[in-house]
Amino acid sequence: MPSPLRKESPTGSQQPDMTVARGGRLPETVDEAMQGLNQSVEVDSALWRVDILGSKVHARGLARAGVLTEAEANTLVRGLEQIEAEIESGQFVWDPQREDVHMNIEARLTEIVGPVGGKLHTARSRNDQVATDLRLYTRSAVDDVIRALVDLERTILSRAVSEIDTLMPSYTHLQRAQPSRLSHHLMAWHEMLSRDYNRLVSARDGLNESPLGAGAVAGSGYPLDRAWVAKELGFERPMRNSIDATGSRDFLMEVVSALAILGVHLSRISEEIVIWSTTEFGFLTLSDAFSTSSSMMPQKKNPDVAELIRGKAARLIGHLTALLVLEKSLAFGYGRELQEDKEPIFHAMRDTMLSLRALTGALATCTFRRDRLEGALEQGHVCATDLADYLVMSGVPFREAHHIVGGLVREAETEGVQLSELSVDVLAQAHPSLMRPEAREALDARAAVERRKLVGGPAKACVLKEAEEAERRWVVALSASSWRRI
Amino acid sequence: MPSPLRKESPTGSQQPDMTVARGGRLPETVDEAMQGLNQSVEVDSALWRVDILGSKVHARGLARAGVLTEAEANTLVRGLEQIEAEIESGQFVWDPQREDVHMNIEARLTEIVGPVGGKLHTARSRNDQVATDLRLYTRSAVDDVIRALVDLERTILSRAVSEIDTLMPSYTHLQRAQPSRLSHHLMAWHEMLSRDYNRLVSARDGLNESPLGAGAVAGSGYPLDRAWVAKELGFERPMRNSIDATGSRDFLMEVVSALAILGVHLSRISEEIVIWSTTEFGFLTLSDAFSTSSSMMPQKKNPDVAELIRGKAARLIGHLTALLVLEKSLAFGYGRELQEDKEPIFHAMRDTMLSLRALTGALATCTFRRDRLEGALEQGHVCATDLADYLVMSGVPFREAHHIVGGLVREAETEGVQLSELSVDVLAQAHPSLMRPEAREALDARAAVERRKLVGGPAKACVLKEAEEAERRWVVALSASSWRRI
Amino acid sequence: MPSPLRKESPTGSQQPDMTVARGGRLPETVDEAMQGLNQSVEVDSALWRVDILGSKVHARGLARAGVLTEAEANTLVRGLEQIEAEIESGQFVWDPQREDVHMNIEARLTEIVGPVGGKLHTARSRNDQVATDLRLYTRSAVDDVIRALVDLERTILSRAVSEIDTLMPSYTHLQRAQPSRLSHHLMAWHEMLSRDYNRLVSARDGLNESPLGAGAVAGSGYPLDRAWVAKELGFERPMRNSIDATGSRDFLMEVVSALAILGVHLSRISEEIVIWSTTEFGFLTLSDAFSTSSSMMPQKKNPDVAELIRGKAARLIGHLTALLVLEKSLAFGYGRELQEDKEPIFHAMRDTMLSLRALTGALATCTFRRDRLEGALEQGHVCATDLADYLVMSGVPFREAHHIVGGLVREAETEGVQLSELSVDVLAQAHPSLMRPEAREALDARAAVERRKLVGGPAKACVLKEAEEAERRWVVALSASSWRRI
Amino acid sequence: MPSPLRKESPTGSQQPDMTVARGGRLPETVDEAMQGLNQSVEVDSALWRVDILGSKVHARGLARAGVLTEAEANTLVRGLEQIEAEIESGQFVWDPQREDVHMNIEARLTEIVGPVGGKLHTARSRNDQVATDLRLYTRSAVDDVIRALVDLERTILSRAVSEIDTLMPSYTHLQRAQPSRLSHHLMAWHEMLSRDYNRLVSARDGLNESPLGAGAVAGSGYPLDRAWVAKELGFERPMRNSIDATGSRDFLMEVVSALAILGVHLSRISEEIVIWSTTEFGFLTLSDAFSTSSSMMPQKKNPDVAELIRGKAARLIGHLTALLVLEKSLAFGYGRELQEDKEPIFHAMRDTMLSLRALTGALATCTFRRDRLEGALEQGHVCATDLADYLVMSGVPFREAHHIVGGLVREAETEGVQLSELSVDVLAQAHPSLMRPEAREALDARAAVERRKLVGGPAKACVLKEAEEAERRWVVALSASSWRRI
Repeated sequence: MPSPLRKESPTGSQQPDMTVARGGRLPETVDEAMQGLNQSVEVDSALWRVDILGSKVHARGLARAGVLTEAEANTLVRGLEQIEAEIESGQFVWDPQREDVHMNIEARLTEIVGPVGGKLHTARSRNDQVATDLRLYTRSAVDDVIRALVDLERTILSRAVSEIDTLMPSYTHLQRAQPSRLSHHLMAWHEMLSRDYNRLVSARDGLNESPLGAGAVAGSGYPLDRAWVAKELGFERPMRNSIDATGSRDFLMEVVSALAILGVHLSRISEEIVIWSTTEFGFLTLSDAFSTSSSMMPQKKNPDVAELIRGKAARLIGHLTALLVLEKSLAFGYGRELQEDKEPIFHAMRDTMLSLRALTGALATCTFRRDRLEGALEQGHVCATDLADYLVMSGVPFREAHHIVGGLVREAETEGVQLSELSVDVLAQAHPSLMRPEAREALDARAAVERRKLVGGPAKACVLKEAEEAERRWVVALSASSWRRI
Repeated sequence: MPSPLRKESPTGSQQPDMTVARGGRLPETVDEAMQGLNQSVEVDSALWRVDILGSKVHARGLARAGVLTEAEANTLVRGLEQIEAEIESGQFVWDPQREDVHMNIEARLTEIVGPVGGKLHTARSRNDQVATDLRLYTRSAVDDVIRALVDLERTILSRAVSEIDTLMPSYTHLQRAQPSRLSHHLMAWHEMLSRDYNRLVSARDGLNESPLGAGAVAGSGYPLDRAWVAKELGFERPMRNSIDATGSRDFLMEVVSALAILGVHLSRISEEIVIWSTTEFGFLTLSDAFSTSSSMMPQKKNPDVAELIRGKAARLIGHLTALLVLEKSLAFGYGRELQEDKEPIFHAMRDTMLSLRALTGALATCTFRRDRLEGALEQGHVCATDLADYLVMSGVPFREAHHIVGGLVREAETEGVQLSELSVDVLAQAHPSLMRPEAREALDARAAVERRKLVGGPAKACVLKEAEEAERRWVVALSASSWRRI
Repeated sequence: MPSPLRKESPTGSQQPDMTVARGGRLPETVDEAMQGLNQSVEVDSALWRVDILGSKVHARGLARAGVLTEAEANTLVRGLEQIEAEIESGQFVWDPQREDVHMNIEARLTEIVGPVGGKLHTARSRNDQVATDLRLYTRSAVDDVIRALVDLERTILSRAVSEIDTLMPSYTHLQRAQPSRLSHHLMAWHEMLSRDYNRLVSARDGLNESPLGAGAVAGSGYPLDRAWVAKELGFERPMRNSIDATGSRDFLMEVVSALAILGVHLSRISEEIVIWSTTEFGFLTLSDAFSTSSSMMPQKKNPDVAELIRGKAARLIGHLTALLVLEKSLAFGYGRELQEDKEPIFHAMRDTMLSLRALTGALATCTFRRDRLEGALEQGHVCATDLADYLVMSGVPFREAHHIVGGLVREAETEGVQLSELSVDVLAQAHPSLMRPEAREALDARAAVERRKLVGGPAKACVLKEAEEAERRWVVALSASSWRRI
Repeated sequence: MPSPLRKESPTGSQQPDMTVARGGRLPETVDEAMQGLNQSVEVDSALWRVDILGSKVHARGLARAGVLTEAEANTLVRGLEQIEAEIESGQFVWDPQREDVHMNIEARLTEIVGPVGGKLHTARSRNDQVATDLRLYTRSAVDDVIRALVDLERTILSRAVSEIDTLMPSYTHLQRAQPSRLSHHLMAWHEMLSRDYNRLVSARDGLNESPLGAGAVAGSGYPLDRAWVAKELGFERPMRNSIDATGSRDFLMEVVSALAILGVHLSRISEEIVIWSTTEFGFLTLSDAFSTSSSMMPQKKNPDVAELIRGKAARLIGHLTALLVLEKSLAFGYGRELQEDKEPIFHAMRDTMLSLRALTGALATCTFRRDRLEGALEQGHVCATDLADYLVMSGVPFREAHHIVGGLVREAETEGVQLSELSVDVLAQAHPSLMRPEAREALDARAAVERRKLVGGPAKACVLKEAEEAERRWVVALSASSWRRI
């Protein structure tokens, strides 16, 4: 495997067969440096399956329009099916000299079926062809992502239910804040990811229109039935404007925005996995199957899975940036920089799928260490707010109660004890009339969690109810004929 | 107006009144360098209106929960209304020592109403307070953006209808491609922006939930009616998880993604305005009210409006990047970097509104120069595809027809003439049997446009129909009680 | 303080005095929406000091060229000095109708000195004027950043020296790796930041050229002495091409790249401060003057300083993105989107300075908790590599030694003990001939640190030597007449 | 060639030989989803050549340190040379189960040389190994980029000299501004790119340090001679801190910043090529070897080369974003997300090289159309500034002169003529005493260009001088033993 510079550099002095791609207007040779920049088959060959699907439907559409005979259309479809088989079996030879996936397939088709192959491109341009391919590809890839995301969500739900009795502190600023439960924390992950699901569903809806028939930019004079073609390809309708259909790529920006936000969310979960896996926190142990070792230090068991997912989030932000910048200030119609949208969308899908699958596995198989999680409630004065609330209940304005308890915490710190370890006397000094002995009941962590039983709170009943309703929503979502926002 | 470095640097040796913000836990002084980084009132004071709105509803909610008496709640609400009046009239003094908008308002409230002011923050944290403020602000700002976007869309529609008879070439790669009409091009802009409308509507739907009652991170033990509070603030429902409610900001990432894509689209239109305004193209003349001059060159009339909108697109991509990076790898719950989301969202809204309004005005008042637009059809062999299609109709495979016509174009270029100026003899040499004299009819641009009458094509009837249906959709959208995807 | 949308929206129906900015070519009114987008004085007034400096030198230069009389130049300079005083004292009224800082100052100058004020702009355009202002501003701001960075570096050095005897584990993947010392870790921060210093010095060198005299784009026909003007302004030389001088902004991209990388580095240190400040790690306690509290939870002491610096890094990446995107695909010469470079560069400087100063203070005043740092060596089998190295010394190939020790760690984990607690017998079973009793000496952490005494290693002597040499370099750097890479 | 999702997804149920990578601590199987995320050999195999180089020097270094015998080192080096030959000839089988390039090569080495292969990794970790590889790779790739950039610069210089007599308007806001010459415009490109050269040279200097010997994070206890190793690998010195050496990647951020800015600059030139190639401008004709055609429109000759380079600039900004975000908030030492820096750096180099080579070829072979360039001086009142300067010479303040000439331009526009076509009478009306008949001499474009003869101006002598000095600098730069800033 050569260096990337060499690998993707121009291929040298061979004289390409450029007839198909160059037409009669330009001479058949192209400069080697230009060839390196211009050819895209190493990347866009990934579109072969949707390209062939689009071409088969286009051939049928040309026959319906009377532009081809039924026999001609059949010949083309059979030729395309042969190519499909060749690619699947690995026999097909991709030729960078033929520029891209479209020209590779068309040239091979003409080899197979003869001159009638030259009729396939009637009433079509690579501009509407590639726009169609990209929408078909993206629609299918988004479906894969949504399915993998639902898997992850249900894995989280399942862990939340099974850990329902495990308490832990909630954190803000990574400092212990108030008593909470592990499943409440897991449900925060779940809830956050539910919005990613919604974004992906909206983006999928938005992209599901057919560019085919828009031609290079100005439509077609052939009597194509664009609505029939759209329906055959599973699209909701033909796009309404041929210039927009061939020159716009906001569907990619929108999908990759949704993936980047999802990536950011996965990175947040991963950050917590990294921190919880430290010896110091010790809240979580990854399974060996999702851990890695060191080439030098024999004792290491590393959470690379979570670090890599954080890294993938960075990549996703980079892919999104590339797509946004690519389209900025681009005059209509099709411009060739749009070729450069392919690697970002392909890699965005790859990076998302790898992240989702690995995180699902890691969360399904990790161990939450209940002793450590609950042990963390014992330090950090996590019930200070409850003590202030106790004073408020006796009529002290919250701001004053907050100040009083803050002073007690300062005293506890000075003494090197926890708030709950301060003597009744010390407490009473802070507010003689109201800080009665039973004030210390406010400092029981388990009771404090159950007191917070509003919608969205950490009390056991609240969390269980949310989890059940969430699972019900996923079951409905998975059984519907198409994705719907939840 | 001092330099930005000095202006926003720490304010020196004054001793702040930090009692409200610091509580009893920490001493009341903070380092000056820390103060510079920590205070945010110069930025977040923009939230004052929604902050007061949220506090009024929270006070009422505390009374409903029995935590305050009705009289106390009334006192608080009246105090907040006084503050509202003070800010509107410019009397209110913002104090950076009081850190942020929330503490400035609470401290002033206590000055006005006395100790009962200290009860307002019961059952609330700045964490759920600011999350609520941001959602209220963003919802309202998105409404403004949607309205301004619909204005722009209808302006474009109106120009498309009034220019329905103006022809022009379509372009790909900024090279003349095929004959088309100006209104078809304008409708491409319109169609592209319609998807921005949909993205904004989805983002607005997604953010319309109430964080209030989530407290700092772990909910509240007071018997608040979160659903009632949500309804009073116009939210659809309380958020389902207190950790997520206070620690997630994907609603900002989603809205700013939609704005960044919209900005990219506005930059594309602007690029065309810049190019069309050149002496060389001469397709468009901006009105004087939207033009600028040069400080040195007396003859200049510059399309700064379009350049600035391109610049704003760059800014929007920057704002989005900042928000995505800010949230990446952030452990739950609230972390203080979230303070840094405010300038990006405020500036994203500002930059979008300025761009939308100026572009609407510029397009409403510009002149499209029909002579130049139609004159551009006379060069560039724009009917070459039509000639190839003519051959296809006689049974020549498209690929071969493309090659034949390409050769003719090469010949025309050598002779220094247009394809339509080649003699019948030269045409006939290219394909003696099929290239009959009537082939030249294929080279009439106006007829060529009308031939392209498929859905989404440039024929007059197609474009008019699209414009009428679009206008109908906007009328429906504007008359509905809430925004809906179209 | 009104909402950001309103604050920065067009100013309504007033009729501006646009004579200065509009010239005789265009009518004097401009659309309100255009005015909102077009005016920049709220942002670029920050350039006032360098703008006046540049104008004073330009006036002198015009006199040297014989374009102005000495008396005229003196009048202009005195007028400019009066404006300087007015701005400094807060008397100056900035008028958005006059568009920008340049026109505000020029218009006021003409009010003060009469028609001769109209001579100042001879042989100059706003294009070369603003390019000059930006370079002067940026050069000065970079100097401030470099000085603040050196302060931070020396603070780190000083802590490294004073903590020279504090051991701690080194970490990879946030897992305990091998024994090390705190000052070695601090020196890693120092070394990383030294490269930021070098980048800033290179960027400063690169930008120090004078655009003045380049005019709008095509130079000037007046006999200016560009070299003299350059020298007066402290530039190394005039820029070599007038189109490039007025239309390029890579000096901003380069400086903000350097700041973004610096921001990333500060965020890395901050991430460690956040983690080390947790109850779980407990390695570091911020001073109260650099800590914050919670509005709701009385016990909280939060590391907001470090979180905000992480947030600033996100902002800096956003500023850089905006600048890169702004310039991308921009045709020469000056285009108006360049106005949009100001807020990013000003905010990049602000965000960097706030971060540097606060981090310096936080590190100067924090407490490193030696008990916790050294206590962390007791778990995590941190000397496993040393045990493997012990075997290698007896001739076992490292890969085999690694495998043997890995097995011992697995055994220790199963038994719930540390590697160093395994019995001599268990050790001997792993490799009967080589794992002799003295093997356990390899497991002494303090000795292990001192064994790693190569250049760049954690042994006490190595770290002290690096610290001394580093301090020497800073002393030299600070005493030189100009910044030099170290 | 399968779809990207499938291609890079986990490889299924095969049981990997993970012994080398996993050690004795963890069981040998890893989850399939984890394997997909974790393995990197498809990407990092590009490092094979530098990885082998580093290993050969490390083997020699171990022998010098007495850790290996000379015979052992020789065996290892010979084995590595055999692997080098296998990879070059395409025989080497890369195994994703062996994770990465390092483990693939080490495993094969042990197959070839037996157990002594297990000694190569003594005193080394993949952490310092990959840091070394990346620096070697990047240094070499930067050298390639610098060479290609100098080629482009000299091509531009050569065109500037040969077109020295071709006039054209300068532009601001894409509006005709003042008379200038083509070679002055080309020299603006050259000057801009010269700063890119300087940035690359600085970045190369900064990265040229040796991490080898830093181990995993905490150095090494073996008596390696780090300085000798550094010298053997062409580095200036060993890195000064082992934690920094293994955990920092700012050298990548810095290099890719420089490449992104270079990409932005190439996109600016490309934007001008696209615009100048339009039928409307017609300033430039690309050679056929750098032009492309349309699959549908037979007449098309498209400037895809320039559009693709604009697209590559977007990609480069995306790569930079990914790298910055990747490192942000990363705790020391090595974290696994650093694996994700490889694709961005490799692709950044690829995209830059493709762009530089293709642009060099396109500019070397394009035709500048002198008739069109000079014809463009005839419209746009390009000498208006000269007329104002003429008035200034008679004592009219510039601002007044600007206003007078602006009024004349308005009059000319109303009459539909050029400023130079206004009658002497009309001119005289604007300023009876000063606007004498010879004022019209100010309106001669060619004379106006030659009047602008300051340093950096468009006069012929100035441009020729700059070109000659520039060429001299390149000759010196290319003949030096190492790159130096110019």
